[in-house]
Amino acid sequence: MLNQTNLNIPLDREGEEPIYRQLIRFIRMQIESGNLTAGARLPASRDLARQLNISRISVVNAYAELRAQGYLSAHAGRGTFVSGETSTPPPTSQHSNGGGLAPEIPGTPDRSLREMMRLAQKPGVISFSRGAAPTEFFPVHSLRDAMNAVLDRDGSAALGYEAREGYGPLRAAVRDYVSALGIQCNADQVLVTGGTQQALDLVIQALLSEGEVVVTENPTYLGMIDIARARRVQLHGISMDEDGIRLDELENYIIDNNPRLIYVMPTFQNPTAAVMPLHRRRQLLNLANDYNIPILEDAVYHEFRFEGEAVPPLKALDESGIVIHASGFTKMLLPGIRIGYLISDNRHYERIVRVKYAADISTPGLNQRAIHLMLESGVLAQQLERNTRELLRRRDAAVSAARKYFPPGSHWNVPEGGMYMWMNLPKHGPSAAELYVTAVQMGVAYAIGSVFYTNSCGSHRLRINISTQKPAEIEEGFRRLGRAWRELACDYADIDKAGLL
Amino acid sequence: MLNQTNLNIPLDREGEEPIYRQLIRFIRMQIESGNLTAGARLPASRDLARQLNISRISVVNAYAELRAQGYLSAHAGRGTFVSGETSTPPPTSQHSNGGGLAPEIPGTPDRSLREMMRLAQKPGVISFSRGAAPTEFFPVHSLRDAMNAVLDRDGSAALGYEAREGYGPLRAAVRDYVSALGIQCNADQVLVTGGTQQALDLVIQALLSEGEVVVTENPTYLGMIDIARARRVQLHGISMDEDGIRLDELENYIIDNNPRLIYVMPTFQNPTAAVMPLHRRRQLLNLANDYNIPILEDAVYHEFRFEGEAVPPLKALDESGIVIHASGFTKMLLPGIRIGYLISDNRHYERIVRVKYAADISTPGLNQRAIHLMLESGVLAQQLERNTRELLRRRDAAVSAARKYFPPGSHWNVPEGGMYMWMNLPKHGPSAAELYVTAVQMGVAYAIGSVFYTNSCGSHRLRINISTQKPAEIEEGFRRLGRAWRELACDYADIDKAGLL
Repeated sequence: MLNQTNLNIPLDREGEEPIYRQLIRFIRMQIESGNLTAGARLPASRDLARQLNISRISVVNAYAELRAQGYLSAHAGRGTFVSGETSTPPPTSQHSNGGGLAPEIPGTPDRSLREMMRLAQKPGVISFSRGAAPTEFFPVHSLRDAMNAVLDRDGSAALGYEAREGYGPLRAAVRDYVSALGIQCNADQVLVTGGTQQALDLVIQALLSEGEVVVTENPTYLGMIDIARARRVQLHGISMDEDGIRLDELENYIIDNNPRLIYVMPTFQNPTAAVMPLHRRRQLLNLANDYNIPILEDAVYHEFRFEGEAVPPLKALDESGIVIHASGFTKMLLPGIRIGYLISDNRHYERIVRVKYAADISTPGLNQRAIHLMLESGVLAQQLERNTRELLRRRDAAVSAARKYFPPGSHWNVPEGGMYMWMNLPKHGPSAAELYVTAVQMGVAYAIGSVFYTNSCGSHRLRINISTQKPAEIEEGFRRLGRAWRELACDYADIDKAGLL
Repeated sequence: MLNQTNLNIPLDREGEEPIYRQLIRFIRMQIESGNLTAGARLPASRDLARQLNISRISVVNAYAELRAQGYLSAHAGRGTFVSGETSTPPPTSQHSNGGGLAPEIPGTPDRSLREMMRLAQKPGVISFSRGAAPTEFFPVHSLRDAMNAVLDRDGSAALGYEAREGYGPLRAAVRDYVSALGIQCNADQVLVTGGTQQALDLVIQALLSEGEVVVTENPTYLGMIDIARARRVQLHGISMDEDGIRLDELENYIIDNNPRLIYVMPTFQNPTAAVMPLHRRRQLLNLANDYNIPILEDAVYHEFRFEGEAVPPLKALDESGIVIHASGFTKMLLPGIRIGYLISDNRHYERIVRVKYAADISTPGLNQRAIHLMLESGVLAQQLERNTRELLRRRDAAVSAARKYFPPGSHWNVPEGGMYMWMNLPKHGPSAAELYVTAVQMGVAYAIGSVFYTNSCGSHRLRINISTQKPAEIEEGFRRLGRAWRELACDYADIDKAGLL
């Protein structure tokens, strides 16, 4: 057996560059400069991780990437070696920008994992990773007609500053729209926003000061994690059971910590696709009322049900006005048009409007007016119905492919709506993060589950967006995912065995 | 002489409702309920103000509004009386909402004045009050063509989430556009934003924590006052001389208080229309570099010059990267499309982008792509040129009307660009706020100057947007303004005389 190379790697643990990329850069430099020569054996991932006091994920992924680039080769059961020949890599000057950045805003978990996910987008990869709807769902022609109709009708009036609260007829149309979901409100409780994300952000800014706490489900929506980071507020995640956020844990936390806001996504939660049943909704409302803590309800997936009975939104059950309801009908239909809304009673409405005005004066009037026309004409509702039928077809394809290809011992939900399958890999194999680079090399990508947690849990979780691929790609993508897992699980077993020698 | 009525008015000084509106409501109720009967004489405005410990402005405006509604009548030299007959007022249930609001975010000056300005918009009034460009300047047809061309070319790709930094070709076009102003940058230093307002807000949020200080010119842009209020940061205004922000005062403040950011609008400042000359720009840059305090440059009026020589933006003179440049080419052309941008070096860029992503994920892609086409085709530049020619015509009309109608002893600037005339009423007459309701009743409105100050100065200042009215309306509007002043100045003299008896 060859001697193992001792790698003394200077790491910047505070920097912007993910650890695994620093490893890649360092090892590549060592090979290119001749310090590491062909045939040299690298330390086992477990050993190097221990030696550098970093996570094994970083080493596994760095080795996988370097194998893909031809710098390293692996021999099952023997280890990882510097290859005989290496392809000349492209110049990497874009990485030199990373150095001079100011220190970070207080961190949120797993930034480097998200960075890794972003960097690993490659052509040919079947990606289930994004939170977006498929572009073939967009009613391009209807939007075009609506834009033209608005400009014909309103002329320059469509191009000036819109009212800060939103275009009046659209606010009335939102009121009518949500009344079909059981929400009774007046048009003057409706605020039109630049997408649902802005609605969430405005509420956080209006209701919380820096350092104060929002309670969320754990896992929770990534965009809320981003908001907390940018606005310097704290997130505290409460565990979920099969009915959603756990109320015993929530109440204990409230008693001890007096948080300012509860943020939940009760229907087709992102990332778990869970639906909170009616009784839990009522209990949650009672709890919030008992302690007088407002609830921010994110209902962005509410209408994407393709199976089963609808459960009313929290706001439809809210008699005291404690719920602020945020949504947008364009998440699946026209995400880039950026029209969302929120519904709030007077207690908070004025303040939220002022924050909105300071943020961007108004949401583009032409976009609001076009969406208003499409709502009124029924085009959006028709398109949504077509889309949910197609979603069901994709869900069925995903479930059958999962049964065929996912590793034995893995679990997943069968969603009745929304866009996500939430999967759990077997505990004895690689984690979702460890699997990631190998999966991308085999042509499939997903969202690493732990990024959705407020406390770095969920190591073996994957969020799979089953809406963005057609059934044939879902089948092929799941096949690749299964293959990647088996290859790595195999490696793992071997390396672990070697480690025991 | 009749006995004066003693009014014991319960005021909510912490509430949302402006004091003068509370006065109106109370006096109207007293009249409607019969507690105040026809012919009763009300206290002189000065006396009531002293008695209630409120500003005289509130009383003058409440009386003026009640006269306009027919509840009161005034007789010069004798005082203000309850009218013989009153028209039945409309139900005012919408005012009952004002009571239950949570206490305010730490205040900024003159909210009630702004509320007053907003409420006083009436049909038939020639308004010079808004900060917007005239709608006849908007290139409606060109925008329509561009929207259609984008949807033909890109289809659904124009309707998904755009890149968080902005649409790539638009970022490159912005780079080229600002290079004509002398700013050298790369496309990857350009961030596309939802209007210039969002650009300013993102910088404040990325660079400052709650309670920290931004130094501004005094007076300053109202939107920055809104941002400070919403983001809970403090503004400190530095006096201006004829060359802009005073550097001696600025340096003293910096030494004592170590602010985090300097915000300036060096060209055609809002509201003063002042242009900072080249030597002051260089000195300001030196000062900022000496103390290492970033400058946020708001260049939103930079291109609206209709006379004289252009002065380069601060960013064009910036060798150290200390300037963040914010602007938008749609302020005058397509304000409701909400496309702005900022240019920042790497020190702050990444952090600002993260704040942007948390705020609204991305700026609408269709809007970005349409503006990109209009920039590339030269349509925007042509339209801007046409508009500035028309602005010059309006400026000339305004200057000649001001000479004719403005009160003797008043002062104003002759702007070389931008949209504003900044006027100073004679000190011996009514203040801009005292004049306001009378002016609106005579059919003319303006922005009350003191709302632009960080410290309630500028009582006799008016900001007059000369861009929004055609020359004939400017003439007529200024005539009304002069008449309103003379009437009130006359009243004033009488009441003051009565007060001396």
